[in-house]
Amino acid sequence: MDTQRPPLALTMGEPAGIGGEIAAKAWSVLRQEGPAFFFLGDPALLPGVPHRRIASPAEAAAVFPEAVPVLPLDLPAPVTPGRPDARNAAPVIAAIEQAVALARSGAAGGVVTNPIQKSVLTAAGFRHPGHTEFLAELAPGEGPPVMLLAAAGLRAVPVTIHQSLRSAIARLDAALICRIARATAAGLRRDFGIAAPRLALAGLNPHAGEDGTMGTEDRDIIAPAIATLRAEGIDARGPFPADTLFTPHARAGYDVALGMYHDQALIPVKTLDMAGGVNVTLNLAVVRTSPDHGTALDIAGQNRADPGSLIAALRLAAQLADHRRNQAA
Amino acid sequence: MDTQRPPLALTMGEPAGIGGEIAAKAWSVLRQEGPAFFFLGDPALLPGVPHRRIASPAEAAAVFPEAVPVLPLDLPAPVTPGRPDARNAAPVIAAIEQAVALARSGAAGGVVTNPIQKSVLTAAGFRHPGHTEFLAELAPGEGPPVMLLAAAGLRAVPVTIHQSLRSAIARLDAALICRIARATAAGLRRDFGIAAPRLALAGLNPHAGEDGTMGTEDRDIIAPAIATLRAEGIDARGPFPADTLFTPHARAGYDVALGMYHDQALIPVKTLDMAGGVNVTLNLAVVRTSPDHGTALDIAGQNRADPGSLIAALRLAAQLADHRRNQAA
Repeated sequence: MDTQRPPLALTMGEPAGIGGEIAAKAWSVLRQEGPAFFFLGDPALLPGVPHRRIASPAEAAAVFPEAVPVLPLDLPAPVTPGRPDARNAAPVIAAIEQAVALARSGAAGGVVTNPIQKSVLTAAGFRHPGHTEFLAELAPGEGPPVMLLAAAGLRAVPVTIHQSLRSAIARLDAALICRIARATAAGLRRDFGIAAPRLALAGLNPHAGEDGTMGTEDRDIIAPAIATLRAEGIDARGPFPADTLFTPHARAGYDVALGMYHDQALIPVKTLDMAGGVNVTLNLAVVRTSPDHGTALDIAGQNRADPGSLIAALRLAAQLADHRRNQAA
Repeated sequence: MDTQRPPLALTMGEPAGIGGEIAAKAWSVLRQEGPAFFFLGDPALLPGVPHRRIASPAEAAAVFPEAVPVLPLDLPAPVTPGRPDARNAAPVIAAIEQAVALARSGAAGGVVTNPIQKSVLTAAGFRHPGHTEFLAELAPGEGPPVMLLAAAGLRAVPVTIHQSLRSAIARLDAALICRIARATAAGLRRDFGIAAPRLALAGLNPHAGEDGTMGTEDRDIIAPAIATLRAEGIDARGPFPADTLFTPHARAGYDVALGMYHDQALIPVKTLDMAGGVNVTLNLAVVRTSPDHGTALDIAGQNRADPGSLIAALRLAAQLADHRRNQAA
């Protein structure tokens, strides 16, 4: 295990969800080889594994092979698996804030977030549309934050995300596509170490509009955006019919696919690789990944949760942090 | 090989495409075990395999182990691979018409169509939006024709198909969803032998609208349609978030997924199983399948085409024809 590498900060997420369980399971898998992480949360959430309270991330690497290092954030209300309690919202939010602060200072290598239950935090006064927007406020990067989904053999970015499909279509313009594509290319260079990233843009309409006979956005919005990007030296191609963009043959031809809306980018990632998919936020001031699933309240407390996505998120965060340090060096 | 079973009618499709090549390759794979088929087209399109001209489908089964049985439809213009010629449109269309007529009479077990180049046929006066609409006119069933994509482990139906995404959203209403869902359920019973098909309906919006906070169609259109279908005794469920509807775990819970638009249904099918995907038209008066790809003009004449999808289409057509005969018996 690389002890020079700063440990990753792993937030507890929703205490009534599966965050503690998958953190404990991930530690059991990673304790020998790493990457080392420390848990920001209530140590009572970690079932069946040893833990040790630490006062600073600098202690984490030495502790990690023996116990889960914990920077404690105690919860005021008792935790019932599957039943979130708004009284516990403040330490859940504090874990995210502290993780970002430690990553910004360099004490942590990056931030890995367990899923939160947004409705509970909102009820407690959390005023951000989601995790990513909160992180972008805490650690803004150059350009917009970009949500990238990484699965085995596929990286995908939705150009529009959490809005109705109707409003996503209305929102789509060449400027937005260019902004997201530039930020994606920059993120792949900086964090993934891909010198000249190849971007494949999906069409919006069936068959990418078939020359405008099934919708005009492909021809009038996406194609001009691609021309602009190419003129800037970005290897952007398309628009491609979305249905054949995610076959093994097609995937070999690009480093990232840009979907025009949420499901167009997320369906192929989750269809191919639900358990090992990772959510990455590009263009923050810190490295951030998270598992590609929710709080799973329905199976919380039953020792049935699969830690695969969290393990993949921790491993990928360590790689991204390495790339970023190498770029900076 | 079952010689009681009527042979399948396989149309030539676009002569300048890969139809003849994959027909020849499919015959080489299927000649011993079947299902037997005959080729409706110009025998010169079949490279490197023996063929024998037949006068009636009744001769096909005896010929099939030794040569491709061909009901000849000669082409007036020379064929250059990759360059469709509108002068050959008439026999391409005639092949489809004859295949349907032979299946309606019972002489053929079902129709398997090679891909056509619609623009070339349109230039020659073909006035149908596509293959399926033409077939529905030749052999109408009860209710609308339904396009079903079948891959290994997944069947999917798009509720709206070849129209812009914007117009697909505008077109979506509960009556349309119910009409397609009923026809899908009837088709699965009759042709797939599934007594009580389980239908999973995707939401239109991200996260199926999250209680109306990201679009209202899921709550106001799709959910009421599902309630109507359930009241009629159809096992319809949803609306489910589309991004997690195609994981292996989710797929185990239904017999068919209904996507609200083209790419929502086709992305998962083609991502999972491009080479073996099959396009089925439910609710025609005849069984009809086709490979899940186009004319592939770019690789025509190079002996590079993969016959996997056509072979799967032939095998599935034979199964569907068997089910339909058993239902009728």
